[in-house]
Formats: sequence, C-alpha cells, structure tokens
Amino acid sequence: MALTIQDIQEAAKRIVPYAARTPMLRLQSLDSFLGCQVYAKAECMQVTGSFKYRGAMNKILSLSKEELNRGIIAASSGNHGKAIAYACRMLGVKATIVLPYTAAQVKVDTIQGWGAETVRCEVSERFEVAERICRERGATLIPPYNDEAVMAGQGTAGLELMEQCPELDMVIVPTSGGGLIGGVSTAVKALSPKTKVYGAEPAVLPRYSVSVAAGHPVKVPVGKSVADALVSNMPGTICFPVVAAHVDGFAAVDDAFLLQGMKLLLMEGKILCEPSSAIGIGAVLQGLLPIKPEDKVCFLISGGSVSLEQLRALV
Amino acid sequence: MALTIQDIQEAAKRIVPYAARTPMLRLQSLDSFLGCQVYAKAECMQVTGSFKYRGAMNKILSLSKEELNRGIIAASSGNHGKAIAYACRMLGVKATIVLPYTAAQVKVDTIQGWGAETVRCEVSERFEVAERICRERGATLIPPYNDEAVMAGQGTAGLELMEQCPELDMVIVPTSGGGLIGGVSTAVKALSPKTKVYGAEPAVLPRYSVSVAAGHPVKVPVGKSVADALVSNMPGTICFPVVAAHVDGFAAVDDAFLLQGMKLLLMEGKILCEPSSAIGIGAVLQGLLPIKPEDKVCFLISGGSVSLEQLRALV
Repeated sequence: MALTIQDIQEAAKRIVPYAARTPMLRLQSLDSFLGCQVYAKAECMQVTGSFKYRGAMNKILSLSKEELNRGIIAASSGNHGKAIAYACRMLGVKATIVLPYTAAQVKVDTIQGWGAETVRCEVSERFEVAERICRERGATLIPPYNDEAVMAGQGTAGLELMEQCPELDMVIVPTSGGGLIGGVSTAVKALSPKTKVYGAEPAVLPRYSVSVAAGHPVKVPVGKSVADALVSNMPGTICFPVVAAHVDGFAAVDDAFLLQGMKLLLMEGKILCEPSSAIGIGAVLQGLLPIKPEDKVCFLISGGSVSLEQLRALV
Repeated sequence: MALTIQDIQEAAKRIVPYAARTPMLRLQSLDSFLGCQVYAKAECMQVTGSFKYRGAMNKILSLSKEELNRGIIAASSGNHGKAIAYACRMLGVKATIVLPYTAAQVKVDTIQGWGAETVRCEVSERFEVAERICRERGATLIPPYNDEAVMAGQGTAGLELMEQCPELDMVIVPTSGGGLIGGVSTAVKALSPKTKVYGAEPAVLPRYSVSVAAGHPVKVPVGKSVADALVSNMPGTICFPVVAAHVDGFAAVDDAFLLQGMKLLLMEGKILCEPSSAIGIGAVLQGLLPIKPEDKVCFLISGGSVSLEQLRALV
C-alpha cells in the first residue's frame, strides 16, 4: 500500500488545467430530512459528468510520450469509458473503448462523438478483447479503479472537498471497486484525521463490508441493484489495503432507500444525480450511519449519468 | 426612482445572518448547447427555494418593532407567500397569508407548517381581503415586488453574482413585475457598467418589452404561460423606472423554448428549476439574445418550486 497524500497533490497539479473544481454545495433544505448539516460535493458537474474523469486524466498524464503514441484502451460503457474517451480527445491521444453489444446506443454515440474508436463484443469477453488489442498494438489498458494513478486522481475530489469545507465531520462516498473511496479517504485522513469517512455500497453487493470483516478482498455473489455504477463484486486488490487503512465503516444500502435519496436530492436539493450517487443519502435515510444534528456531513455525489427513462421511473 | 447600490449593500448586511449565499455554478456542459460560457446563479438553492426570501427578509427587517408587533400580511400562494411565512417564523413575527381556494394543498400545508395563519378566499378578491385585514389589525402588507425595500433585497443576488464572477459579460434575469430585475440590474450596473443585463419574459405576457417601448408602464392582456411565477401583466410602477434605466433589453420567450431550457438545465446541467426560472435559457435557445461563444453569461435561476406533476410532464 503506497498511495500517499503527495501522490494525490501531484495528481491535482497534473489535472488542474483539464478538470473542473466542482462546487461544494450547502444544501440546508435537506437538513431536516437527514438529521445533519448537509453538504454535497457535486461531481455530477465534473467534465463528462462524473469523478471518473479525474482518475482517467491523471493516469493518462502519467504515461510517457511513447506510451501515449501507442494509444489508450478501456473496457467500459459507463462513466469510465466516457472519461477515457474525453480525456484522450483533450490530449490528442488515440482512444479505443471496448463496449458490449448491449451498451445503449446513446452511450456509443457519445463516445464515438468524442473521436474514440469503439470495438463491440459480448459482455463476458470485454476484458479479453481489450487485453488482446493492447498486446497487438502495445497500447495501454486503463483499469477503472484498480490502479494507483487512477486512485490518486479520484483522490483529488477529497483534497478539494476538505479545502472547500475544512470543518467537515463526515464524508460519505459511494463505493464499488474502491478507487474513489481509496483516494478520497487517503486525502481526507491526511488533512483532517478526525473527519470520519464512510463508504456506501448496495446491500446486494456488500463487497467491502464483507471483505473488511474478513481482512482480505472477498468475492461476493453477483447481485442486481439500481446502482448501475457500483457493480464490482470484489474490492480491487490495490484499492483494498488503502481503503481498509482509512475508512471508518461501510453501510450496505437497500435500493428503496437509495431511490428515496435520489428523489429527495432532486426535489428538495434541486440536484439531479445518477442512482448510484444517491447511495450515501440512502444510507442515512436507512439509519445506517451514526450522525448527529450538529454534524457537517458531505455526500460525495459521484456522477450525473441519468437517462430520461431512469428519471421517468423515479418520478 | 431612488433605488441605489447603497440600498442594496445595506440590504445585504441586513439579511446576511438569515439568507444563503447561493452558489454560482460554472456549467460547462451547457456551453455547446447555448453558444457561450454558461454560469448559473442558483437561487433555487435559496432558503424557501427562491430569491423571494431576500426581498421578504429585507423588507421585514426594515420595519419598526411596533410594526412587527402588529404582524405581516401577504397575498400569495407562491414563492412570495412561502418567503414571507418563513422569514416571519425566523424572526418570531406573526404572518398571515391570504390564499385563494384554488391554491394547491401542499402549498397551504407548507405555509401553515411554518406557523403562518392562512386566510382563504376567491382568487379575484385576495388583495381586497389582504387590505381589509391590514386595516383591521394595523398590520403591514408586503407586496411581492412593487416596493423599494423588496427590490433592494432582491438586488443582493446581483451583488453576490458580481462578487462571485466579476468578469461576467451578461446576466439574464426572469422578469415579471420587475422586483428581481430592478434590484439585480441596479447592482450589476453599479459594479460593472459594461456587463449587459437582459430580462426574459413570457411571449404571451410581454409587459416589459411593451412598456419600455412605450416609455411608461403598460397593462398587457392576460396570457397563459407555463411560467407560473411570471404572471404580472403590468410592470410595477416603482420597479419600472429602475428597470428602464438599467436593463439593456428584453426577450419575449415562447413556452416551448422555456420547457426545452428547463429540460436542458436538468439533464445536462443537473439542476432542477421551476419552469419560470428556465426562461433565460429559453431566450438563448430561441435565438433572442446577442451572445458570442467567448461571452460569460450568467443565468439567474430564480427558484426551484417544481411539483412532481410538473416534473413528470417535462420528462
């Protein structure tokens, strides 16, 4: 485990010309619903609509000129794929995004619109296909979370939120493979050891709750949740020790509370987030986290990729 | 016409313990849609969900102790009524809100929940009823816009936005009776004479476009628009000279563009606003305002009072 606050500070310097310093919003209108002083770090307003752009950009900017010339590969139809495609476009680097045949056409169009090559395959063979292309071209595969430079990039959100509100009592982070919470918890604990960091993950995919209890990464059964950006069923092996060292606890959240949280953030907080990003609010609504009325609690709103269909289903 | 920047600066000092300094958001994701650098002053995140709280609070804080003891009256089932009820609650002052029988029950409940008395009557007789109560009790009627202290309070949003982004080229303000745009334009022109201020009003109720052309307040025919917070059919007589002196022009916006703007702000900008507040974005989408790609344009997002029904209809 080698990720340090210095890695994250260097990442921040690297990405600052390209990434947005997203706003920290004080959402008083949610206080009475959540029983604390509510803050939101709005990564849904990040370039490409999610925090993934931070890690993608930091990783790409860490590569050599030779590596960049051979191109970048990612296997993701979601926020990671979008982030890689757009970061490569900004830097004039060739991107190839491997997408399952089942990926929504609007996502394929977006990624192609940013100039990335797309390769289609079965969902199950996407990593195999990506690795084959890497071997053939000498290109670099950028993983969505299990990578130190990616984690350092995501951690810049943690740096910013502590600068924007140094007196936070708690930060609640949507959790999947562990890239975001690994980076953010490293930054928060370095700057303010007393600030608590909690992860929120779907109740049907409690990979961190289970793994931290076991003391090592455990693969949990695949489960289906509306949190469609939190689908990893095992902690990243590079992420796990970082997360285990810094995070104070995990909440395993039911979909019903997550959706209630998404609706609350929209109707009372006036912010539209993707379902996965409301999981921290869901954790509090479900009563899973120890908060007090005077606590300043920051919800990391990780992304805003919501389709009209998802929004219609919500309202 | 006596409203000055000093009035607004004093209002800002008066209301600062009670009102939110709402965020100024840089919404890069909207740039390509609107053809400029997009900023949003998010008054939808103000206490009570709209800018109306600024003017209500400033007016109430300007009254004498005796006046406060005799109570406050307002005739509004919308943002003004909510703002008055909540401001009075904060200050321990008795509020009476006159509401038409047709007001939605959820609004009545909100206002009563904040401790205000409610008096119901026919829509057409609401001002008469409010004035009668004032006479009987010696209470103070607070008008929604045609009042200098109310206008000064609304102007504090203009002070803030120029502090938050001093290099703005243009500010676009939803316009009805003229309280918000009167205050905001006074503040903006005092701090940055070169910054343009435009008003956006419904095409079916172009009271300012018509009145400014005529050189005096003109009553236009009552028209029906989705902009349900911009219903005045004549400029306020106190607002008009202030607005006429400071505002660079007006756009009369069709409902279809307004709704397109509301959807764009929600799906791409991740901000939920009420229909009326998207009228500035609608004005740009309709091609009614002279903007250039390098212009920094601030859309004043005046409020966020959206019902689930309105949101359902939109998506």
